[in-house]
Amino acid sequence: MKVRGQHFRTIWLKLEDPNVVQLIDQRFLPHQFVIEEVRTLKQMTTAIRDMHVRGAGLIGVSAGYGMYLAALEAAERGSFDERVSSAATQLKATRPTAVNLSWALARQLETIARGNTADEKVALARRTAEQIADDDVEHCRMIGHHGLKLIQSIASKNAGRPVNVLTHCNAGWLAFVDHGSATAPIYAAHDSGLPVHVWVSETRPRNQGSKLNAWELGEHGVPHTVIADSAAGHLMQHGNVDLIIVGSDRTTYTGDVANKIGTYLKALAAKANDIPFYVALPSSSIDWKMRDGVKQIPIEQRAAEEIKRANGWLDGRHVEVHIAPERSAAANLGFDVTPRHLVTGLITERGICEANETSIFSLFPEHAP
Amino acid sequence: MKVRGQHFRTIWLKLEDPNVVQLIDQRFLPHQFVIEEVRTLKQMTTAIRDMHVRGAGLIGVSAGYGMYLAALEAAERGSFDERVSSAATQLKATRPTAVNLSWALARQLETIARGNTADEKVALARRTAEQIADDDVEHCRMIGHHGLKLIQSIASKNAGRPVNVLTHCNAGWLAFVDHGSATAPIYAAHDSGLPVHVWVSETRPRNQGSKLNAWELGEHGVPHTVIADSAAGHLMQHGNVDLIIVGSDRTTYTGDVANKIGTYLKALAAKANDIPFYVALPSSSIDWKMRDGVKQIPIEQRAAEEIKRANGWLDGRHVEVHIAPERSAAANLGFDVTPRHLVTGLITERGICEANETSIFSLFPEHAP
Repeated sequence: MKVRGQHFRTIWLKLEDPNVVQLIDQRFLPHQFVIEEVRTLKQMTTAIRDMHVRGAGLIGVSAGYGMYLAALEAAERGSFDERVSSAATQLKATRPTAVNLSWALARQLETIARGNTADEKVALARRTAEQIADDDVEHCRMIGHHGLKLIQSIASKNAGRPVNVLTHCNAGWLAFVDHGSATAPIYAAHDSGLPVHVWVSETRPRNQGSKLNAWELGEHGVPHTVIADSAAGHLMQHGNVDLIIVGSDRTTYTGDVANKIGTYLKALAAKANDIPFYVALPSSSIDWKMRDGVKQIPIEQRAAEEIKRANGWLDGRHVEVHIAPERSAAANLGFDVTPRHLVTGLITERGICEANETSIFSLFPEHAP
Repeated sequence: MKVRGQHFRTIWLKLEDPNVVQLIDQRFLPHQFVIEEVRTLKQMTTAIRDMHVRGAGLIGVSAGYGMYLAALEAAERGSFDERVSSAATQLKATRPTAVNLSWALARQLETIARGNTADEKVALARRTAEQIADDDVEHCRMIGHHGLKLIQSIASKNAGRPVNVLTHCNAGWLAFVDHGSATAPIYAAHDSGLPVHVWVSETRPRNQGSKLNAWELGEHGVPHTVIADSAAGHLMQHGNVDLIIVGSDRTTYTGDVANKIGTYLKALAAKANDIPFYVALPSSSIDWKMRDGVKQIPIEQRAAEEIKRANGWLDGRHVEVHIAPERSAAANLGFDVTPRHLVTGLITERGICEANETSIFSLFPEHAP
């Protein structure tokens, strides 16, 4: 998507030196647009774990590129297979909830194993990393194509009033390679001339909503309003939300949806106020082995300090301020699970389905048991 | 309650000079304990509007003291009745949602009118301000007495496991004069030796949870954990919450509850997970004229900038950092309304009742139509 009028992906191989991965270091948005050069596996695991890159799709794609960097290192230093397998273990440990991570790693390991020489393996790793990224872009584009119909249908009844879409966290292009998942239908609607307005839930404690979503919507020119996470219920109760679209870090094949902490509360409010609640996700986020999301999806617990601090910009400096007593305990749960009965539908690259086994398998029969 | 081992109220007349009101300036907690001296009506309207003092009860009590300061000024400068009536108008305009404000102002105006001379009126205003404060303390103490039974009943089934109470915003002693409303049963339980642990919802954008609730619970020694507002649903879904107690800024005589934005989402999650959801409030927070809370209670919209900033402490300085793009719009709704069907019960100074007209009037028959 556009940044100051120029097209960017979130991650790419450096044009002048394809042994280097370049990525947008998202920690400094919206106040600074920083491009990081990642040259080693170690730098990539840091970038994922410390959230220079984040978001379901982008984590997977970054892991794909991380495996390519690992293959480059292995070709140089020897013990190829051992190094590459250890790289996968290290990358997998960075973020436990997102399923795209294991999916991308499995795809890389499987492909790399097909090479006969180190050079061949490196070439395969590079091609696979690029393919994972390109697939991500195409899948998100198709999510936009399918989701657009939902917005068109509401717009046709709205008599010119903007369609109010509420989202949570950043499931935007910054969370993928391009387009985004939850934002793809929004960008498609905006680009097709439909009036659309987005309620951006700020998403404490890391503020991916107010920092990333607001920034990318702003760069693309989509009207939006930042709100406290707590405000979603009131807006729905008073008719200010037509549609909710969120992303997902992992969705079970039965339709339970893990997404950023707070998604479940929004789904409950949508149900109570009869507002359609959609989850946009490429099928790479579907866990084809997991039945019960509430019981089985591991929920990442991040550092308690994130809750007791807020970070932002002060006189051009990026700083962290204390917002709680030093001696108070804090708990920092990264995700929650929205049970399938609260989900109106899933918007995937192959179309929209209901959040249940039958409907999901009808779109993805190759995964049916 | 105790601050560093010494007993404090949130507001009081200065011992050495009863023409001066002293109050805890809550803007600097938890990092600095500042006592402000308020000498004029103007200073008091600023203190209420800019939230040096806040919270349902304390706003009413501060308005009561504000009327006393106004009476002192009027006695000195003449046009007594005009000045006092204008003072009530100014104080009422500071915060639109809390009903305690109008209640305290009406009580003062009515009492002051009974005096014959300016001196008499001033004396009545002082006595009434002190009486409003003392009533607030006694009502909160009784809320603690009645609410304690709920916690005892859960503790008796918990086999020594702490009772997990979740609350939102600060309906603690800082929001009243002493004890608090939502916290009164918690303090009563803790003081009686019951094991109790509090989930403190941080309450963006002003962080009354992480700043004020965490501070006062910590000072009193009550175990607590600060969480993002978004985390309440997950905790309830996973059995980590036994009981919810929140406060209220205005409750209709039919049982609809206005409280800090985000309360409604917590009530929805409580209902979905079969967790008791109680609202603790002195009857001064009941609006005896309003039938439909969702439609009729005015919702204060505060400055959008509060959403785009976070304020806290950095190297001993109180600063504000930017956490959203400058050009993004933001909406800052102060309160939401939880409809009565989501409320298990109201804990009042006269006992616990259901959130409906019949049950409320049975406790407060003098208000029945």
